Amino acid sequence: MKLYDATVSGNAYKIRLFAALTGIELDLVSIDLAAGDNRTDDFLAVNPRAQIPVLVDGDTVIWDSQAILVHLARTRAADWLPEDTDGLVRVMQWLAVAENEILYGLARARAVLVFDRPWDLAQSQTLGRAGLAVMDGHLADRAWLATDRPTIADIACYPYVALAPMGEVSLADYPNVVRWIGAVQALPGYIDMPGIRPASEIA
Amino acid sequence: MKLYDATVSGNAYKIRLFAALTGIELDLVSIDLAAGDNRTDDFLAVNPRAQIPVLVDGDTVIWDSQAILVHLARTRAADWLPEDTDGLVRVMQWLAVAENEILYGLARARAVLVFDRPWDLAQSQTLGRAGLAVMDGHLADRAWLATDRPTIADIACYPYVALAPMGEVSLADYPNVVRWIGAVQALPGYIDMPGIRPASEIA
Repeated sequence: MKLYDATVSGNAYKIRLFAALTGIELDLVSIDLAAGDNRTDDFLAVNPRAQIPVLVDGDTVIWDSQAILVHLARTRAADWLPEDTDGLVRVMQWLAVAENEILYGLARARAVLVFDRPWDLAQSQTLGRAGLAVMDGHLADRAWLATDRPTIADIACYPYVALAPMGEVSLADYPNVVRWIGAVQALPGYIDMPGIRPASEIA
Repeated sequence: MKLYDATVSGNAYKIRLFAALTGIELDLVSIDLAAGDNRTDDFLAVNPRAQIPVLVDGDTVIWDSQAILVHLARTRAADWLPEDTDGLVRVMQWLAVAENEILYGLARARAVLVFDRPWDLAQSQTLGRAGLAVMDGHLADRAWLATDRPTIADIACYPYVALAPMGEVSLADYPNVVRWIGAVQALPGYIDMPGIRPASEIA
């Protein structure tokens, strides 16, 4: 299986992390976003959205990190995506938080400060903090986001939450989120990406 | 079944439209967003994200429009959400477009111009047009987004695409998207919302 990847991308890291946790082997193809590798004709033929990650599994090509997580769980790691309707719906809710408050809040704030992207920093931070507050309340009496065990919802939310300090959003006000970060980091097979700190060092 | 709803919300309209197409009865509870009805303690107890739509189906409370679509399809309209992995993955891809280019592009541009929201209009329009270009290419040789029949992916993408002109994003450059809008509007049971024009009048 081939993954079009970039080390600095939290969205690509979702897939690398999930593969590491579930023992899936990936052949990584590095795409240099700063050099415009994602705008070449060859890459646009793979993903017209010009984004990584993209997974190639045999004849199947899948863009979008959440769709890739669903594919990998359904084909090789069924425990991570509930079959029952209520479990699937709870996963969907937190995939939505990952695509909204987390991506357009926390990830955008990081992209402004680290990659000099043109988004509004304060708006992004405000949206991100709103998402963290909702997560923190939800995790007050739960270990994991969607069900009583880790699912792809936790994997989808984790990278840009754990990277939030790079966007100057402190995690110190969200103790349940920090505990959950620690729980993800304690999963067997866990791997890191640059910029993520151990939960024990978040204060 | 109770739906917390607002007439002006494309996200709430997704649920009203899907219910109309599938013969599901909804009791609508109108939430006045301009008056702050979504920030009351009572409403935040239902949805801590302070957003509509929210569905209450017996003892089950579900926030997020995409999670609600999954719930309704799984419990009452199975044809609209494939069970097989590839079909589910293709639906997930277009739900992602609905949450990204469409929501943070087209819907934000509309919200700036219609509701005086503080987002950047040009950035939102640019992101929205990028999404329309991808959709238009995809629909060049397909009738529907995810499979060979309409799915919840079409319903999730439809409202803010059809409302794009309210954000001063013309649909005239995307003929395959306009054809697809017409196909949605031709579905038995289709209902409208304010601001959506018939496909035949989009030029």
